[in-house]
Amino acid sequence: MKNRILLNCDMGESFGVWTMGDDEHAMPLVDQANLACGFHASDPMTMQRTVDLAVQHGVSIGAHPAYPDLIGFGRRQMALSVEEVRALVLYQIGALDAFCRAAGTQVAYVKPHGALYNELVRNDALLEAVLDACASYRQGLPLMVLALADNRREIRLADEADVPLMFEAFADRAYLADGQLAPRRLEGAVHHEPERIIGQAVAIARGEPFADIDGKPLQLVADSLCVHGDNPQSLAVLRRLRAYLDAS
Amino acid sequence: MKNRILLNCDMGESFGVWTMGDDEHAMPLVDQANLACGFHASDPMTMQRTVDLAVQHGVSIGAHPAYPDLIGFGRRQMALSVEEVRALVLYQIGALDAFCRAAGTQVAYVKPHGALYNELVRNDALLEAVLDACASYRQGLPLMVLALADNRREIRLADEADVPLMFEAFADRAYLADGQLAPRRLEGAVHHEPERIIGQAVAIARGEPFADIDGKPLQLVADSLCVHGDNPQSLAVLRRLRAYLDAS
Amino acid sequence: MKNRILLNCDMGESFGVWTMGDDEHAMPLVDQANLACGFHASDPMTMQRTVDLAVQHGVSIGAHPAYPDLIGFGRRQMALSVEEVRALVLYQIGALDAFCRAAGTQVAYVKPHGALYNELVRNDALLEAVLDACASYRQGLPLMVLALADNRREIRLADEADVPLMFEAFADRAYLADGQLAPRRLEGAVHHEPERIIGQAVAIARGEPFADIDGKPLQLVADSLCVHGDNPQSLAVLRRLRAYLDAS
Amino acid sequence: MKNRILLNCDMGESFGVWTMGDDEHAMPLVDQANLACGFHASDPMTMQRTVDLAVQHGVSIGAHPAYPDLIGFGRRQMALSVEEVRALVLYQIGALDAFCRAAGTQVAYVKPHGALYNELVRNDALLEAVLDACASYRQGLPLMVLALADNRREIRLADEADVPLMFEAFADRAYLADGQLAPRRLEGAVHHEPERIIGQAVAIARGEPFADIDGKPLQLVADSLCVHGDNPQSLAVLRRLRAYLDAS
Repeated sequence: MKNRILLNCDMGESFGVWTMGDDEHAMPLVDQANLACGFHASDPMTMQRTVDLAVQHGVSIGAHPAYPDLIGFGRRQMALSVEEVRALVLYQIGALDAFCRAAGTQVAYVKPHGALYNELVRNDALLEAVLDACASYRQGLPLMVLALADNRREIRLADEADVPLMFEAFADRAYLADGQLAPRRLEGAVHHEPERIIGQAVAIARGEPFADIDGKPLQLVADSLCVHGDNPQSLAVLRRLRAYLDAS
Repeated sequence: MKNRILLNCDMGESFGVWTMGDDEHAMPLVDQANLACGFHASDPMTMQRTVDLAVQHGVSIGAHPAYPDLIGFGRRQMALSVEEVRALVLYQIGALDAFCRAAGTQVAYVKPHGALYNELVRNDALLEAVLDACASYRQGLPLMVLALADNRREIRLADEADVPLMFEAFADRAYLADGQLAPRRLEGAVHHEPERIIGQAVAIARGEPFADIDGKPLQLVADSLCVHGDNPQSLAVLRRLRAYLDAS
Repeated sequence: MKNRILLNCDMGESFGVWTMGDDEHAMPLVDQANLACGFHASDPMTMQRTVDLAVQHGVSIGAHPAYPDLIGFGRRQMALSVEEVRALVLYQIGALDAFCRAAGTQVAYVKPHGALYNELVRNDALLEAVLDACASYRQGLPLMVLALADNRREIRLADEADVPLMFEAFADRAYLADGQLAPRRLEGAVHHEPERIIGQAVAIARGEPFADIDGKPLQLVADSLCVHGDNPQSLAVLRRLRAYLDAS
Repeated sequence: MKNRILLNCDMGESFGVWTMGDDEHAMPLVDQANLACGFHASDPMTMQRTVDLAVQHGVSIGAHPAYPDLIGFGRRQMALSVEEVRALVLYQIGALDAFCRAAGTQVAYVKPHGALYNELVRNDALLEAVLDACASYRQGLPLMVLALADNRREIRLADEADVPLMFEAFADRAYLADGQLAPRRLEGAVHHEPERIIGQAVAIARGEPFADIDGKPLQLVADSLCVHGDNPQSLAVLRRLRAYLDAS
């Protein structure tokens, strides 16, 4: 394992009186927090609180922009133009960065959420729009994308836009042969057994192959592992992962 | 007249397919554009377009944050906590600044909108919250407030928060004796005759007294005049004002 | 006790992926469900599910209209005109009734929510607007209001509008001497001890006096008791209340 | 021409302070008004006003439900489940019907809007969901769909759902050979010349063939013509159409 792999987690996904996740317990365990920006979840007060919590624990803050779809939590594909996507990503980065600035820090990277995230792997113009939003907001602001068996497309487009990339892999999701996430509707798309999740995480952290959804070996090179900490079970897994990474 | 008085105008108040104002014709005539940030009007694409238009004409860009009330255009008083107000002002400044940064500039000042603006003259805690949002976002970011017959309260609170103030006056609104705007429900609260508007503007620009709503003389010291340019009549008045100020 | 007192509960207050309450366990225990209509909580799918759940348990369905304020859960006072309030109450009743009609039933009563509910006890024009919305929607559609020490004002205005009233009292809230709810910011405004809640409920059910926030006796005549069932503790209290009422 | 063809028009598409269309002048000229229900346009006060205007002119009121997308005016395709679509159509019909009931009338038909309307011609499950919403709301409530060269699919599904259909054609849109609307991105997709619009309208009204986008003859059987009246030009065309239909 060349560099220590980081742990990232979607956070700040409460909205008004409705809470989601257990940010207070998960925050101390991760390296990077992907914070909702008010389009699929969160609101100004939630962003304020979550940024402050991240800063308190020295956690790097990523903007987690999404389609404007609170009811659907940003998971429903919307047919937006690339200009619209660029503009709404810029808007959300800026809104979150205001709380970061007020807390003496800044947005450290951008990781799109939900349907927008999923669409990036198949739509060049959309990926270019998001890359352009990152580059336009701040030179050197990285974009976090899905680690695939072959990321040459993402690397080429990011190079053209002069945007650094971070690659993330998932510990609790099954993969297709090309490194894409198995769609949630497929049987076995989400791992629930702690041993399976930790095993896959450790393999990815070490750069070793692990089983894809068909049992075939898949090897991914990732900078960060996306983890969850929204219930006691996932928190327990997260604690074990954290301990493993700190020890290695 | 010590310094040339500036002209500011609320702009970027379209929303989705609905247009408001005539930004294209008004923009070349003003010095400062107060741009809606998506809470009472505007959306990411409108913000993108309006920021680009302002930059093209060398117009200074102000954030125009408001209560979250699209249907009421931010004009309906809402009982928010000061923490909520601080957070939503930060959110909106940041969102607008993203488009400014992408266009190579930055938010130059903050001018609250509608019911939030009106509430600032009577609520110290609210004014402190908005001042704190400005100071937290960027040291030296000015807040634009209403020029009153006596602005010592605003100056004191702004000094405590280390926030520069800009004072604005209105050419087309009638004033009460203390320099507060006559409520719109009062007869004669809004001037419609071009001569009256221009006369009041010129008096304010020169630092000379003009008639308040009761006909008594009122003198205001202002850095900027709020003008409108959303219809042919108001554009004609704005052109004459612009010409007068450029000539003097 | 002349008529059996009913139990009503605010339900259907989830929103998108965010859940609130434990409607599944509370629904079988109550007589009336006040269902959010999408302005302070809920969404079309949540309304669909909650109406179906109420119908399945033979629970009477009330519309629970609110100010348009998802982030503030309808609890923040908004300065709307009476025409706006009448229109948004009509809108919400109709929206909920669509799911009732699809399920073979109809909205049985209207109970405003949050800040709108609180405002009704002090604003005649607002109460008239809500009464007019009820009467305009369906002749005989009842409005549920707060049982006070003296409800002559509500009875007079409702008679003028030809709208039947239902009076509700609260088992877990402390009262002022005039029967208004003690504001939540006051110490002791909300009862947490099960014995206290059940004691107050039984007193109200029997039409007997109970202690107001100052310990003085207060007597209220109510048709329905507002109860909560959103956590294990409140569900336990609700089960005991249900058993008591069924036995008496 | 067996039955007189009707004229329908999208109306009530203002939102808050933003106006769209010229409902006041167009309303007296049409037979059917398709009223927005707050998801792509409109708000409770606008619905109130537009329903009252329609009733005043004896115009039949149709619900014009859409995807929840104010910024995109309901024109952007969203990947909703059929359950979600059924629920949001029910919600919107009910909300509009509340104003109809308050005005002594009722929603007379349902015509989906924008991307939802366009999707109905290619998605059986979606069409079934909308038909089910109509049938669930009120037995016999008709659905207005696009008149095609061959509407057997729509007739079959509507029969299964026991929902009457109304067929509409467009006077100012170019058609593909199968009777589908030519996509707006195609050159010549929208007619702008009054003579062309009136000519196509008269042909459809008489049941005679007219030229599709490739100049080939197309014949459509329609109950209603969708017209526009939002600017002086379209109002002039609408007045001529009205006069022609009244005379024939």
